[in-house]
Amino acid sequence: MGRVTGRRKVLRIDDHGARHRPDTLAAEEPLEIQLNDEPFTVTMRTPGDDVDLALGFLHAESVITSAEDVGSARHCTDSDLNVLDVALRVPAPARQRGFTVSSACGACGASSMEALWEHYGPQARYNIAADFTVMSSQTLLGLPDRLRTAQKVFDRTGGLHGAALFNLDDEMLCVREDVGRHNAVDKVVGWAVREDLLPLRGHALAVSGRVGAEIVQKAAMAGIPIIAAVSAPSTLAVDLAARWGMTVGGFIRNGQCNIYTGEQRIQV
Amino acid sequence: MGRVTGRRKVLRIDDHGARHRPDTLAAEEPLEIQLNDEPFTVTMRTPGDDVDLALGFLHAESVITSAEDVGSARHCTDSDLNVLDVALRVPAPARQRGFTVSSACGACGASSMEALWEHYGPQARYNIAADFTVMSSQTLLGLPDRLRTAQKVFDRTGGLHGAALFNLDDEMLCVREDVGRHNAVDKVVGWAVREDLLPLRGHALAVSGRVGAEIVQKAAMAGIPIIAAVSAPSTLAVDLAARWGMTVGGFIRNGQCNIYTGEQRIQV
Repeated sequence: MGRVTGRRKVLRIDDHGARHRPDTLAAEEPLEIQLNDEPFTVTMRTPGDDVDLALGFLHAESVITSAEDVGSARHCTDSDLNVLDVALRVPAPARQRGFTVSSACGACGASSMEALWEHYGPQARYNIAADFTVMSSQTLLGLPDRLRTAQKVFDRTGGLHGAALFNLDDEMLCVREDVGRHNAVDKVVGWAVREDLLPLRGHALAVSGRVGAEIVQKAAMAGIPIIAAVSAPSTLAVDLAARWGMTVGGFIRNGQCNIYTGEQRIQV
Repeated sequence: MGRVTGRRKVLRIDDHGARHRPDTLAAEEPLEIQLNDEPFTVTMRTPGDDVDLALGFLHAESVITSAEDVGSARHCTDSDLNVLDVALRVPAPARQRGFTVSSACGACGASSMEALWEHYGPQARYNIAADFTVMSSQTLLGLPDRLRTAQKVFDRTGGLHGAALFNLDDEMLCVREDVGRHNAVDKVVGWAVREDLLPLRGHALAVSGRVGAEIVQKAAMAGIPIIAAVSAPSTLAVDLAARWGMTVGGFIRNGQCNIYTGEQRIQV
């Protein structure tokens, strides 16, 4: 398995002119995820926590519902370790069922929202609307900074997305970084799957960037009621979160934020 | 086709307390791309420039090499317009050939870099290393700000990635925004495909965020020698760009930047 960062020589240009110096970059490498020794998907990711990444991804894709569905997950030792094989105790899907690659989404005649809901709906196995967790706005406003402080690789590279999971007692349980926004969330959820913590009632997920529909979907699959983001959500992210009864806070900066949906969970 | 932005009611929390107000969000909707009336892929994207998005995506995937390979590209009028059908004048691939979903990438025994190179190499149809374009560091340092200034939807939502194409005369030819970083680049390259401007010798691509391997690959396929980014590239992005003879400038902020590879094109 590769390293989380890599050093490269760069030409630094500033007011003092130009000079060469070493620079630390976020590592990006392909990882092939195999199911029962058969290729399933290849993702670009930052090396590290590959098992969590795979479990989180497989959970979001409804291939597994808990760690009990997994017999083993290990790197292929006769390769360069960029192959991870997951032995399933449940039937393997015939091919990757990426939620964005269903031809049902844009089916003629259906509104995209309805088609998406039909596609997503059955996957929402937890009733998040019935999660009556309450969080103070002060706590919510502090989550992104706590994530940022915990992002060790970001400090060295300035180039990684982060995701962190907080519990009811306001403890940061898990923080993960990756060049891919979705990968960071998969790694966090995969960790929780491995720790048998699902459904994540009363938990909050902080993310370093924007919130798209896929982030909301991954959180919903894990039963997370609250998403806290540094940046803005998309329309679809908010609409899906509203349907699933989730809370989305965004633009959390400088002691301010927007609650896009699910405001009943936030105590001002 | 949907709108580029959407209005939602949010609860704004700041020092003055909490109040409801309308907020403008970046729109995100699925788009199904069909080839010859057969489903090919579904992508989440910000509506607008769908034809350019499809052409750019198909170009990056080596399905088409120029606009001449396309008979027509039009929205399916009996749907909600989230289906775009592309009629090809070249053979359609059997299925989506996403560059990250080739099982060759992590093939046992091959290093990931070698496997990737084998996968990418044949696709680099332009000899970018032989593009002797020179750009002053002053021009390079100004590109991200010019992109940012041109991002109209970002101003309203704070939530969109941007990409812009500049020519040898330092003119901004095309700027596109999308919730997806890759989509913004696909839209720019698709525009250039439609305008029959490829290969984009002497051009520079500015991107609003980080630079991953896929961004470099899409630029390489279009023959773009210079990538200018506000944020950091990954190791793989730099390594691929170096192999293809491209120039990557990153962390372009406050009159400073790093040249990660291809510094012969930048005049300090």
